[in-house]
Amino acid sequence: MNDIETILKNTADKNPLVHFITNYVTANDCANMCLACHASPVMADDGDEVEDIVSLCAALVLNIGTLNRRTVCSMLQAGRKANALGKPIVFDPVGAGASTLRNETVKTFLRELEFAVIKGNSSEIRHLFGGFADTKGVDVAAQDLVTERNLTEAVRLAREMSVVSGAVIVITGPIDIVSDSARTYICRNGHSWMPEVTGTGCMLGGVIASYIAANQGELLHATAVAVAAMGICGELAHQRGRRLQAGAHAHRSLLIDAMRRLDAQTLQENMKLETR
Amino acid sequence: MNDIETILKNTADKNPLVHFITNYVTANDCANMCLACHASPVMADDGDEVEDIVSLCAALVLNIGTLNRRTVCSMLQAGRKANALGKPIVFDPVGAGASTLRNETVKTFLRELEFAVIKGNSSEIRHLFGGFADTKGVDVAAQDLVTERNLTEAVRLAREMSVVSGAVIVITGPIDIVSDSARTYICRNGHSWMPEVTGTGCMLGGVIASYIAANQGELLHATAVAVAAMGICGELAHQRGRRLQAGAHAHRSLLIDAMRRLDAQTLQENMKLETR
Amino acid sequence: MNDIETILKNTADKNPLVHFITNYVTANDCANMCLACHASPVMADDGDEVEDIVSLCAALVLNIGTLNRRTVCSMLQAGRKANALGKPIVFDPVGAGASTLRNETVKTFLRELEFAVIKGNSSEIRHLFGGFADTKGVDVAAQDLVTERNLTEAVRLAREMSVVSGAVIVITGPIDIVSDSARTYICRNGHSWMPEVTGTGCMLGGVIASYIAANQGELLHATAVAVAAMGICGELAHQRGRRLQAGAHAHRSLLIDAMRRLDAQTLQENMKLETR
Repeated sequence: MNDIETILKNTADKNPLVHFITNYVTANDCANMCLACHASPVMADDGDEVEDIVSLCAALVLNIGTLNRRTVCSMLQAGRKANALGKPIVFDPVGAGASTLRNETVKTFLRELEFAVIKGNSSEIRHLFGGFADTKGVDVAAQDLVTERNLTEAVRLAREMSVVSGAVIVITGPIDIVSDSARTYICRNGHSWMPEVTGTGCMLGGVIASYIAANQGELLHATAVAVAAMGICGELAHQRGRRLQAGAHAHRSLLIDAMRRLDAQTLQENMKLETR
Repeated sequence: MNDIETILKNTADKNPLVHFITNYVTANDCANMCLACHASPVMADDGDEVEDIVSLCAALVLNIGTLNRRTVCSMLQAGRKANALGKPIVFDPVGAGASTLRNETVKTFLRELEFAVIKGNSSEIRHLFGGFADTKGVDVAAQDLVTERNLTEAVRLAREMSVVSGAVIVITGPIDIVSDSARTYICRNGHSWMPEVTGTGCMLGGVIASYIAANQGELLHATAVAVAAMGICGELAHQRGRRLQAGAHAHRSLLIDAMRRLDAQTLQENMKLETR
Repeated sequence: MNDIETILKNTADKNPLVHFITNYVTANDCANMCLACHASPVMADDGDEVEDIVSLCAALVLNIGTLNRRTVCSMLQAGRKANALGKPIVFDPVGAGASTLRNETVKTFLRELEFAVIKGNSSEIRHLFGGFADTKGVDVAAQDLVTERNLTEAVRLAREMSVVSGAVIVITGPIDIVSDSARTYICRNGHSWMPEVTGTGCMLGGVIASYIAANQGELLHATAVAVAAMGICGELAHQRGRRLQAGAHAHRSLLIDAMRRLDAQTLQENMKLETR
């Protein structure tokens, strides 16, 4: 309990600078979500400056949503620098499986970089570690979704992937899984409107980075709290949105503002986290 | 009547994947609008992956709003692949007429690619096929606007342009024109707030792509329904916005959410489509 | 008093075209804010077209938020063309001090281009002219903030910087400073929610460009009015937002819509501008 308060307090007090190399579709939402976590975002993707920016920052987010040859090189450079300086990297392999470029990039990154957290939907994570998933562009394939039925298998997979990669693995979906090689959190927060808006996954990457940047000894736990926080803010956005008769797109603002208002008590009372 | 229901139902049932190579100004709105149409967007613009992505997708949108030499090449590559695979392309020649780069790009695309739909404001479309329009950056020149006065001439133009290009031509404005070489739809839906927000034109490109991707035998009709749907959602957004005393920027969320809620009955009852 | 009405009226009547070479994080907000000022935005950053676009436009905004080697060259090219044609340039040195690339770029721009207005937070402006500021990514360092305590020193600095650069200097913060070598405006409008949302600074660049594009004989005054207008719209957004129990992210829409509705009377009655 107490530690949840600490995680939020550390993030707000340290106001960590988070460096994003990310896609242009959701960059604005990521920046605003990062601010709502009381962290500070900086987007910078040129090879000539990413090492300088990494040096200033407390965490790095690599998101390949709209990757290109130039930014793939910048991501590698930034990632190596972050590894050298011991700064945590969150990797969001958006659309892994959808193209050879994405698949090769992901392979190179897994070989060359050490990630603190790898976060993706079930199709992306499956692809990353075995190439045995279907994919549907940047969306999860229906048969890959984590449900109560395949939960045990998905948990086993996340653990194995954590062993292989050394990273905390986050599989997002109606049920979220957060796992290292020893412990697993299962999170049942969130709301069905969230996949109806682009960028909720990308924003989660920013929340995780903000929390782990400020809570470096608590990698697994801070990641799980970030995942739960995002889900709860999705629920709160929906509750407020229903009163305003708002639709999914309008929920996006409510989501970001819910994150800014989120306190430890609300987080604790609404958290549906289970450990395995 | 019945066919409108079919168009919406096909789009929702097939949930087509739409590949956008588009500008960074409105990419987020396009992605969210595409989701609101029950389609799935994927933004990808690197030459090393666009052919893979086109292969996964049901339609391609090429929008030159913030073109550069790299993405122009990617667009050509993606377009050729789409043509080879028989997947429809929607071309949005944003700002045609404003620079030599845009004009040369447009010329090359018209020579090298076959488009299912070409959509632009009146200045852009006039420029495309004759270079005889004034232009004002990315906005339509006042004297080019389609009004009741010059409607007959504009319809004739759209038809001729369809003959020349083989594409369905969409001229947007206070009155929208949707034409192939045989038939023309005139649409009087829409609202004056829409040009006050950036991206409503780009979003329409996404709506058209979503509808035609899922209704391939009905190119002209699905395009006309998409244009009417967008206009009606603009009207609905304004009605809701007035109750909330909202301004144009706030209407954007209402517009996207109106699209998600749109059903065949609302569409039929509010459609102001006339055929010529 | 009367001249404020003139500044707004000129902007609305001339509907100036403003060319932005800017970052992909806030480009959408900048475009919408520019429209809300009754100006027209065009975003274009390829070296092959920026000179054409500058030739069409009434003002140019150079914002280095997500600069890269390609766009730095485009900015230089566009800037030189704007100088040759006598069109005003607003320079927003986002994150100056955060990387060698940004610092070198800023140095080159100051040497090669003549700016009408240079606008930044206190850390950025200090860095620009002396390199003696701390920096925290793209955010102002706490000790650099302009407060009542260090106001006199900050005004002196702004004046000196105007002498050195020949530009109107805008230092943004809780207190804003707008200065040329002869006169200084101090503006106390604005609201504490504004730094909680990304892009309010970038949007201000667009407002300044819109106003000065349409009021070329009144550079200092039009800039000061733009700064006050932005602050007042922030206050109005907060008032409306409080009634709606909205958070900071939702204020962004209210801000942009407040700008569209802003009239000379509201501006005059709420302006907290002081000259020194």
